[in-house]
Amino acid sequence: MSTRRFTNEQIDRLLRPKSVAVVGASDRHGALGCTLLNNLVQYEFDGDVYPVNPKREELQGLKVYKDVKELPHGVDCAVLAIPRPFVVQTVRDLAENGCGAVVIYAAGFSEAGEEGAKDQAELAAIAEKHGIIIEGPNCLGCTNYVERIPLTFVETNMQTPPEGARAVGVASQSGALAAVLATTLHPRGCYVSTSVSTGNEAASGVEDYVEWLVDDPATHVIAMYVENFRRPQAFIAVARRARAAGKPIVLLHPGKSDKAQESAATHTGAMAGNYALMKAKLTREGVIFADTLEELADIATIAVTCESLPGANMVVLGESGALRGLAFDLAEDIGLDLLHLDDENSPKLREVLPDFVPVSNPTDITAVGLSEPEIYTNLLTALLEDDRVGSVVASIIQSDPITSEIKFPAIQKVLDGREMDKPLVFAGVDEGANVPQKYIDGLAEVGIPYFPSTERAYRAIARLADLAKRDLESRSGEPLAMPGIGDESGVIPEYRAKELLRPLGVPFPESTFAASADDAAKAADALGYPVVMKAQAAALGHKSDAGGVILGLKSADEVRKAFDRMHGNVANYDSSITLDGVLVEKMGAMGTEMIVGAKHDPQWGPVVLAGFGGVTAEILKDVKLFTPDLGVEQVKEGLLKLKQAPLLMGWRGSPALDVDALAEMIVTMGRIMEGNPSIREVDLNPVIVYPEGQGVIALDALMLVG
Amino acid sequence: MSTRRFTNEQIDRLLRPKSVAVVGASDRHGALGCTLLNNLVQYEFDGDVYPVNPKREELQGLKVYKDVKELPHGVDCAVLAIPRPFVVQTVRDLAENGCGAVVIYAAGFSEAGEEGAKDQAELAAIAEKHGIIIEGPNCLGCTNYVERIPLTFVETNMQTPPEGARAVGVASQSGALAAVLATTLHPRGCYVSTSVSTGNEAASGVEDYVEWLVDDPATHVIAMYVENFRRPQAFIAVARRARAAGKPIVLLHPGKSDKAQESAATHTGAMAGNYALMKAKLTREGVIFADTLEELADIATIAVTCESLPGANMVVLGESGALRGLAFDLAEDIGLDLLHLDDENSPKLREVLPDFVPVSNPTDITAVGLSEPEIYTNLLTALLEDDRVGSVVASIIQSDPITSEIKFPAIQKVLDGREMDKPLVFAGVDEGANVPQKYIDGLAEVGIPYFPSTERAYRAIARLADLAKRDLESRSGEPLAMPGIGDESGVIPEYRAKELLRPLGVPFPESTFAASADDAAKAADALGYPVVMKAQAAALGHKSDAGGVILGLKSADEVRKAFDRMHGNVANYDSSITLDGVLVEKMGAMGTEMIVGAKHDPQWGPVVLAGFGGVTAEILKDVKLFTPDLGVEQVKEGLLKLKQAPLLMGWRGSPALDVDALAEMIVTMGRIMEGNPSIREVDLNPVIVYPEGQGVIALDALMLVG
Repeated sequence: MSTRRFTNEQIDRLLRPKSVAVVGASDRHGALGCTLLNNLVQYEFDGDVYPVNPKREELQGLKVYKDVKELPHGVDCAVLAIPRPFVVQTVRDLAENGCGAVVIYAAGFSEAGEEGAKDQAELAAIAEKHGIIIEGPNCLGCTNYVERIPLTFVETNMQTPPEGARAVGVASQSGALAAVLATTLHPRGCYVSTSVSTGNEAASGVEDYVEWLVDDPATHVIAMYVENFRRPQAFIAVARRARAAGKPIVLLHPGKSDKAQESAATHTGAMAGNYALMKAKLTREGVIFADTLEELADIATIAVTCESLPGANMVVLGESGALRGLAFDLAEDIGLDLLHLDDENSPKLREVLPDFVPVSNPTDITAVGLSEPEIYTNLLTALLEDDRVGSVVASIIQSDPITSEIKFPAIQKVLDGREMDKPLVFAGVDEGANVPQKYIDGLAEVGIPYFPSTERAYRAIARLADLAKRDLESRSGEPLAMPGIGDESGVIPEYRAKELLRPLGVPFPESTFAASADDAAKAADALGYPVVMKAQAAALGHKSDAGGVILGLKSADEVRKAFDRMHGNVANYDSSITLDGVLVEKMGAMGTEMIVGAKHDPQWGPVVLAGFGGVTAEILKDVKLFTPDLGVEQVKEGLLKLKQAPLLMGWRGSPALDVDALAEMIVTMGRIMEGNPSIREVDLNPVIVYPEGQGVIALDALMLVG
Repeated sequence: MSTRRFTNEQIDRLLRPKSVAVVGASDRHGALGCTLLNNLVQYEFDGDVYPVNPKREELQGLKVYKDVKELPHGVDCAVLAIPRPFVVQTVRDLAENGCGAVVIYAAGFSEAGEEGAKDQAELAAIAEKHGIIIEGPNCLGCTNYVERIPLTFVETNMQTPPEGARAVGVASQSGALAAVLATTLHPRGCYVSTSVSTGNEAASGVEDYVEWLVDDPATHVIAMYVENFRRPQAFIAVARRARAAGKPIVLLHPGKSDKAQESAATHTGAMAGNYALMKAKLTREGVIFADTLEELADIATIAVTCESLPGANMVVLGESGALRGLAFDLAEDIGLDLLHLDDENSPKLREVLPDFVPVSNPTDITAVGLSEPEIYTNLLTALLEDDRVGSVVASIIQSDPITSEIKFPAIQKVLDGREMDKPLVFAGVDEGANVPQKYIDGLAEVGIPYFPSTERAYRAIARLADLAKRDLESRSGEPLAMPGIGDESGVIPEYRAKELLRPLGVPFPESTFAASADDAAKAADALGYPVVMKAQAAALGHKSDAGGVILGLKSADEVRKAFDRMHGNVANYDSSITLDGVLVEKMGAMGTEMIVGAKHDPQWGPVVLAGFGGVTAEILKDVKLFTPDLGVEQVKEGLLKLKQAPLLMGWRGSPALDVDALAEMIVTMGRIMEGNPSIREVDLNPVIVYPEGQGVIALDALMLVG
């Protein structure tokens, strides 16, 4: 089933219109309809422009229409620079007059309360009925920089990408941030192809425009600002298409903090989603996450300037020993891998360095490059040609125009006419140094991004290298169907959950359900002592609190007594609960307690969570999320990033634990979740992890179905 | 006892010389002695210049001396731009000729091996003997920007602070970073007073120059790059003086990562110190830590531009809802407090905002400021006048010159002619926007620092606000002398350590030392059962491993048997150990296990460590360091920042713990460490923390003395 709502041709009427109506056109300075019309005229929009204003005859030499009903039938796009109260009726009239797309600037819809939400729903209904595109409301419009079409009231710097240039497409729920991103990218010599701000997303959203950008030949990188994905599955689908098309998606999404989530709700009426879940899902689809606006622009800068993205293992050409220590500290802090280089492991680098400069990373070539600038060219070339290297940074003290004249051309020369499979990034050390613009432009010409400071280059590279380190290709086995699940719904008691999960490969202790004291004693005899007895009823959420778990029963007699005591305990705890019976279970060896859970998010679909159990872990949130399609190796990698991972690897003489078995349990849970969409939640808690080779076992299971 | 090595007059001969000899003066382009001489001539050094070069008669119109012995007696400063082999003899000759200070550029001393270290020691001996200042070796010299004296071979932009201007003094172990810092600060309209690079610090170090900078009337903020403090106590002393003088010290110190510490050792021959300990000590003295070079410059920019430093509780004037969420996320990430503002709690802010803009923080004034720019002036003024507010950020979309013309003057107006007790910082949202320089200069003129991006302003403010939140004034009680400590040395066995510590207020369980089985039984009878028995001998480091701890003894008979068994266990473990006897101790209630330790660092002095015990905590490094002079409230604050602090405050229905008692124990340990410098280490592990009001108790004590 395709998740795509619109064809490219439908969206073309918004983003590549041949005719544009400016509804609320004006000549009053500062009015939205004035700036918009100015933008279209100033940048010589190559199509028909129809100003609409009941009080004007002519604007900018163009005939003005009194009403949208008077417009020629089938105008591609109408931009509404009119007050909110007139919006809905105008959109209806436009739709009936064959208009293909409408841009709505006005705010005051779903973000402003019930009345606004109702009107917004009406807009959605009109769009649906007529098959038109509505951008907004509460948006800043869109700009196609390639075809020079500014459908925005923001003063626009129409920097058109030259034929063949790489460019960034922008899809943003915030109009301000879309504008800001273009302002930031342009002076860096980075082009924007098309920028769309979606605002409240009444009838079209970022997902729809990314579909178009993936197919847009002028777009090579997609930068996004999103407060809430309204159609997560559609975005996952298009993220996969973007990845296949080799167009990286860089996403800035506030919401890590609770306060940011609240803020989003009041901003564009978006309901807060689950940030961690969203991030796990999209990381899996190759989306690159920026944490700040700075990072969004910085990552996009590298991605659009360089032909190839950074791999793991960055190397740095530096000119001061002091910067080495700072680089190590920062690298550790942001999870950036610096390749270890020395004289022994790098004979080719050894060759191009003066005797007194040891091969290292960062390399400290000292000030010798001032007198022998060919060292820049030679060392950087050698680093780029080294297969171990994922990206190269020239971390340079720029000082002044005289120094720049020595260093920049020697660095530019490295990539001049050469295509490389990894990026070379210039990162200034002395931000603010007086560097003539021509040198910076010279770098951009050959595909070397320029960063005024080193730290930001490192951060952006770290984000991109993280993508390179992800295995996005291998997927786990097929979904696992669960026989018998069709008959179930609601809370599934432990014994039944274990009956359902065990055949699919989830290991539990041997156990027998018993509805009477005698059956329990028989079951215990068969299992062997000691056993544990656990009360069973769908309504009994917290067995332990109710006295519903009795450990260490050593004889049939003890089991019989425990059966009666347990029924008493539970009745005493909540007289409304009737037990189905008890589960008699063999007691196993002690081990490290972990938890494995799975849930089916109504928006994002299934996800598996695993981490350390116990109070401490709850406080430390020492858990990881896994998408259900990950393979064992990928899950292991994730587990080894837990804060307490050293416990898994054998801490202070204790044996290494069976991480493989734990990873297999997680993968199995993922396959089960994929195969059975009716399962809403599974909790395996605790899961006991034994030493390597000895497996894992889940002691309890809770399931919610339906 | 003063830690000061030099008088200001001695250092004046380096930093305010009236006569300078350029040893190795040259006219060969690129030679150090050429650039240096050029610098002096170009900036019209207002004193005598004596070039020295055996092969020249005249340079730059100045008479050239053949040898330093021929120089007039008593030249203030000689700068050595000569090869390393000639350095030591030349310094000796200069010292004998009454020279007051020497700058040594040459590398190849302690950082280069044994031979170099020997020569460096010789330099130190000469300096000591003659009372001269030696800067370096392996340094880039110094520049006094106020008196226009560039004793450096770096191309220098001599930006002299105008009379009365605030300026940054720089003391750096790296010459490159000293130069970089000036390059970065100058274009921001920030002045540097004097910059000194100390290199290998043969005979003078950053500590000495900071003494001079604290007394320098042209210096208002001190920025430092340090890889290793060679005289920590001297730096602590001068940091206190700086604080008293109202001159903030901003420090960049690599070494958080192991690799950075290694790197420092090879760079300037500095041995790696203990980063965490250094940071705890200096944080206590009011030093502000920068994590990156960017931060160092950014923090210095705010500190030098604004008359007052930021307090806690930042507020933001913003223009987009999208930036609110991003601000919340970043604030949480970097520990920045955003003051909560709303319509109810801020009537004065309500007054100056249009109806449709709710009071909030960040406030989102939308684009309304474009048509009503007085909103910027009014809102920022109201925020600055609000007593709850510690700093104000104007987070502005700059767009283009037209937009800048509207916004910047309205913001500049806020501080024009007004002195405020808190900073106003301008932070651009759209970095790279074309803002005419005059607007940025206009902000600088009234004391508003300009940041091109918001994130960096936030980070710098967070660091400065952290300083404001520290209680640097209150100090704990007097040092506690420990009677009996004078007789001890080496490892002190548990029973003796407890005898020494208990009278000073460290709570332990009741216990009795016993040298025979009968005495042990008697002791147990007196204490009451159950008891624990612990083997006692200085040589027995790990009692448990040796079978030297037996728990839960319930009768005199069990005690007697345990006494014999324990002697057997220990003999079996290590036959060379003879027990002094056993400690019979009352067993107490269970509680939360923590650890409290103290050590006397030979460099930095005493420090106390506390945190959660057990395996998990070791992995998580969930401990905090406390300087020994902290009061109970300050220690509590630190404890509540532990990762697992929720356990202390009462987690999920469990009772809150006695954090007061724990804090008191830490304070007591600090006072003991201060009162008894012979104590090298104390370990109280575990310390059992009971619910509120029920105290703490240390179960074991280990002491190392001497």
